[in-house]
Order: sequence, then structure tokens, then C-alpha cells
Amino acid sequence: MKSFRKELRFEVPNRRAFINITSEIEEYVRKSGIQEGFVLVNAMHITASVFINDDETGLHHDFDTWLEKLAPHEPVSQYRHNVGEDNADAHLKRQIMGREVVVAITGGKLDFGPWEQIFYGEFDGRRRKRVLVKIIGE
Amino acid sequence: MKSFRKELRFEVPNRRAFINITSEIEEYVRKSGIQEGFVLVNAMHITASVFINDDETGLHHDFDTWLEKLAPHEPVSQYRHNVGEDNADAHLKRQIMGREVVVAITGGKLDFGPWEQIFYGEFDGRRRKRVLVKIIGE
Amino acid sequence: MKSFRKELRFEVPNRRAFINITSEIEEYVRKSGIQEGFVLVNAMHITASVFINDDETGLHHDFDTWLEKLAPHEPVSQYRHNVGEDNADAHLKRQIMGREVVVAITGGKLDFGPWEQIFYGEFDGRRRKRVLVKIIGE
Repeated sequence: MKSFRKELRFEVPNRRAFINITSEIEEYVRKSGIQEGFVLVNAMHITASVFINDDETGLHHDFDTWLEKLAPHEPVSQYRHNVGEDNADAHLKRQIMGREVVVAITGGKLDFGPWEQIFYGEFDGRRRKRVLVKIIGE
Repeated sequence: MKSFRKELRFEVPNRRAFINITSEIEEYVRKSGIQEGFVLVNAMHITASVFINDDETGLHHDFDTWLEKLAPHEPVSQYRHNVGEDNADAHLKRQIMGREVVVAITGGKLDFGPWEQIFYGEFDGRRRKRVLVKIIGE
Repeated sequence: MKSFRKELRFEVPNRRAFINITSEIEEYVRKSGIQEGFVLVNAMHITASVFINDDETGLHHDFDTWLEKLAPHEPVSQYRHNVGEDNADAHLKRQIMGREVVVAITGGKLDFGPWEQIFYGEFDGRRRKRVLVKIIGE
């Protein structure tokens, strides 16, 4: 069994953003030399997500509006976590969108359906964050 | 390390459905000959889910009603994604229910608790869709 | 490839609770002797979750309040699943919080960001429940 590890780094200038990281993950799969296995991609921070969905600007706007409806940022005082913090909503939003994805590697490539793309979802930006990419296989 | 890959195919006649795929996954685990490892089961489409929950008709009705409340289909014009499309809600519903499950294989079998069953969740049916089953282990 | 399997057991006295299980998982990773691989931690019951977030009491209160708003327990008659049962809401809450996490093992340790902690989320307690820990790697 072989393994490969890499970190992606982010410093998003806004509070929230969705960033397509598919090409980076494809590159790491190639570099790993692993032909058959799994790649785990996870946010290393608890106010961010890694998820798979469509690379479509309108949908990303819909996600943002929807998450804000399900777990509103304001008023920050509605959350007990917000004592010297204002990011409780980011912890909730991340639960809806998920921490991680596991993707199959087949023939040395991401084994994806036609529209699958991997995104980093930031819900509490304006600071340094990381995503872990870990590949195991042969 | 051994690996095994298979696709499940669906063409659901309605917009939404929950389909129990546990017996198919059990069969693939048996066919793979893998005794200890992980099986990844994921929707290959971004308006569908794979999840583990109870095989109970009343609960599936509750899931459907609940998802429709959290991410309503109508009015389709409320979503920016719905330009020449009407499936934005399906992209949101899939985030709640998840893209994938990873299940342990122990002694050549799915290592499950008493009521765990694997479901395909369709939120934008009436077209061909696929689920990927990838097994790694020994 | 090596593998390791262990179960955690719970009998939570209340309906709902969040329990930090990180140190148990760390111990099992150490015992497994696996240096590079993945650990899968999943609820074996369909009214419970395993998730990664912050170990902060205020946030756990916020999670509880938020889940109760998104999938209220009362009135129990609003759910078709609740025929001789009262736990339909627990099946829904578990979908938001997730069934499982997959965590990378690097250098014999959980490959975690600064605040990541693993929790068992109970939504229908007062009975015996289990969590599965399965590790594969080398």
C-alpha cells in the first residue's frame, strides 16, 4: 500500500466563499502515482467544508442564501458560542455542507460522474485555513 | 491490496425516490473477495444522495416532507440556478442527505449495526443516473 | 495492509447528548500500530451521529437548539414514522450531523487541524448504542 499527503492553503478575503479545488486534487492524484485507491479531502478547520456539487455561479449564490436562512449569521447574540466570537453560524453551516469527501481513484484518476467537482466552502474567512489531501492505495 | 469497482444504474420514473441498495452492495462485497477493508458508495450525480438510515416507509415520507420544507422545489424562480433548469432544490436536498457513505468490511461482510440500510436518494429523477461502488482492502 | 476494529459503547441517560470520543480514537490508532492510513468512525445506529467540530459547551447548546428548530421532536404526531415510536426527529437530526467521519492517519497519529475533535451525537438515548472504529493502512 502506498500513501500520499498534501495540504492546500487558503486565506479568503471575505467571510464566505466557494472555491473549486478539483484541479489541485487531480494533480495530487497524478503525483501520488496511485492507480487504485481512495483520496480523502477534508477541511482541517471546523468552520469550513469540503463538498462535491456543481460548478455553477447561480447555484453557489443559492447555497449561500439557503445556508444563511437555515443558520443565520445575525443576530450574533442568538448563539451561546458567540462570546468573544461571531462565528457560531459558520460551525452550523459546515455541518450542512460536510467536513470531507472520499473519492475513488480508478486507473490513476478521480472516478467521477459527469458534473462532479470538489469545493472548499469557507464560512469564516479572513484568516489562514488548510485542507488535507490524503491518498491511500496501490 | 485488492480493489473492486462496480456501477449501479437507475432511471427513477418520478422526481424523487428512496431506493434500498443494501443487497446489491452486499453482493459486490462478496464478489470482491475482500475480507477486511472499506467500501465507498457514492452518487455520481450532484442531485442525488447515498445515505444510511432506516428502511421504513413512514420515515421515508417524513424525509421527503422535511426536505421539501428545508429546500422547497416551488417556486422554481426563487433559485438563481433555475435558468433553463428546475432542479436547484435537488442540489440543496442532496447536501442534507449526503453524497456518499463509507462502510467497514469485516470478515467479508458489511460491518453494520442492527438497522443500518443503504439508500439511493433521488431528487431529480426521470433520467439515467449512476452510483459508484468502490472497495479496497485485502 | 493491516486492519484494526473496535467498538465503543454508550448508554446515554438523556434523549440527546454530545460526547467527545477523540482520546478513545487516538488510543485505538496507537494500538493498531498503523502509521499511514484511514480511520473510519461511524454510528452503528440510525438515530445517532459521529461528527467533527469544536469542543465548546456553548456551541453544543447552539447545535441542540438549532437541530430542534430544523427537526423538532414535538409534536411527535407530525411524523408518520412515529407509530409506536417517538424518534422520527432523531433520524432527521442524524442526517444533518452525519453518520461517519473518515480521518487520515499520518505518522501513527490522527492528522488533525488545530481544533478538530470527534464527537458522538446521541439523538435518541436511554438505550445501548455502539460506534464502530475501523482502521486500515500500513
